[in-house]
Amino acid sequence: MKSIQPLTPKEIRVLIRKGKWDKPTAGLAMGYAQANLVILPQKYAFDFLLFCQRNPKPCPLLEVLEPGEFRTKFLSLDADMRTDIPLYNIYRKGKLERTVKEIRSLWEKNFVSFLLGCSFSFEEAMLRSKMPVRHIEEDKNVPMFITHIPCKPAGLFHGPMVVTMRPIPSEKVALAVQITSRYAGVHGAPIHIGDPSTIGIKDLRRPDFGDPVTIKKGEVPVFWACGVTPQAVVMKAKPDLCITHAPGHMFISDLLNEELAIL
Amino acid sequence: MKSIQPLTPKEIRVLIRKGKWDKPTAGLAMGYAQANLVILPQKYAFDFLLFCQRNPKPCPLLEVLEPGEFRTKFLSLDADMRTDIPLYNIYRKGKLERTVKEIRSLWEKNFVSFLLGCSFSFEEAMLRSKMPVRHIEEDKNVPMFITHIPCKPAGLFHGPMVVTMRPIPSEKVALAVQITSRYAGVHGAPIHIGDPSTIGIKDLRRPDFGDPVTIKKGEVPVFWACGVTPQAVVMKAKPDLCITHAPGHMFISDLLNEELAIL
Repeated sequence: MKSIQPLTPKEIRVLIRKGKWDKPTAGLAMGYAQANLVILPQKYAFDFLLFCQRNPKPCPLLEVLEPGEFRTKFLSLDADMRTDIPLYNIYRKGKLERTVKEIRSLWEKNFVSFLLGCSFSFEEAMLRSKMPVRHIEEDKNVPMFITHIPCKPAGLFHGPMVVTMRPIPSEKVALAVQITSRYAGVHGAPIHIGDPSTIGIKDLRRPDFGDPVTIKKGEVPVFWACGVTPQAVVMKAKPDLCITHAPGHMFISDLLNEELAIL
Repeated sequence: MKSIQPLTPKEIRVLIRKGKWDKPTAGLAMGYAQANLVILPQKYAFDFLLFCQRNPKPCPLLEVLEPGEFRTKFLSLDADMRTDIPLYNIYRKGKLERTVKEIRSLWEKNFVSFLLGCSFSFEEAMLRSKMPVRHIEEDKNVPMFITHIPCKPAGLFHGPMVVTMRPIPSEKVALAVQITSRYAGVHGAPIHIGDPSTIGIKDLRRPDFGDPVTIKKGEVPVFWACGVTPQAVVMKAKPDLCITHAPGHMFISDLLNEELAIL
């Protein structure tokens, strides 16, 4: 890990492309935006694009490629969606079939690749402002909860919003809103602050995904839309085929997180 | 005009629906967001949606309807895309065929309606902050210029960005950036400030569309991405059919401009 951390995004992608790195990407190429990948056959692409347009907070699109295209033009000029992700999950009819290190042999001319922003981008900004990010402090996965907030449906795709929770000291909640508002392209401002029960969360100690984290006295639970939402929605729609990054094994772009900030 | 100004968006839409208002919508239902309309057959919809995703500043999508759907769900719960626009332009193969007051008889099950934000939303915020909006002061159309900045192409759709220009006193340029940045969903921050020649504009006195306006001593030309861009791009692609609002004859939504502001 130590030897890969100082490498540039391009250098890391080359290692991944050669099959020499198949571990999670958290902490790699600090400062650079990482992205979630969803690949769908073209017949589902309009509905999914529409779903993302209607639900920009859980589904912050960073780049969508033309049907059949596997090279990005915006996030990098030197990346291949078939090889540059450490691990891919292949789903058929919503069920995980297998996990693979590259998808060259599976590639079809009708594949549409969607790259979505991730909260790593704003967590880095939070840490820079000395905002506690509890799951990082405690070396855990961020706690995620299925809410009863419905996403706006689009064609085949519908389902509840999934959120992440970070406990923030009361006096820093306003600052947390300000910092993450700058990153409107990567989940942006919180969608809920305070009482979990009003969005359908029963017990903060029992997240639906990820790990529970400590909430200290004087801290408020703050909730952000989560990139697991589009994945859950796609699985529920049971498309013939869907390929995603394996959880935590993201695409590392050449774009700085700061380039995604709007203010 | 006087009698219609105090009406609510819903009341105005009813008048329009009954064919009793076919004039421009500027100045009506102050405070409420107005939207540009582009209707395309479904076969063009993915490419156009992708074009908008890639070019959010000139193409700020407010709502996209499912194929065949003519009722909005976000901008209003009581609006019909076939009747609620004062005047529609019908284009075939990129050429204006005719202008009509409703399109019920033309409606097809494969029509996809795209509603895009317009700069009326941030101009109202500028006026509230005592920022000069010269074309309003001089009772003219905003000056628009074709730049040499290429939009990111998507499928059939490509072309240069069209911008609007507003002269701003030097000491207020930063404030103009701050105010319009809040409205990221309706063109947002300027795309260029200062020397017009670096974006391919030869003469500010000769706009490509709209009217020239006075630039006073100490004022800087400030340029925003313009909603004419997607219309120009669609016409260039010569789709079999395209229906838009007639210039200035916009859709009046039930959404407040303030609801579009992100900060």
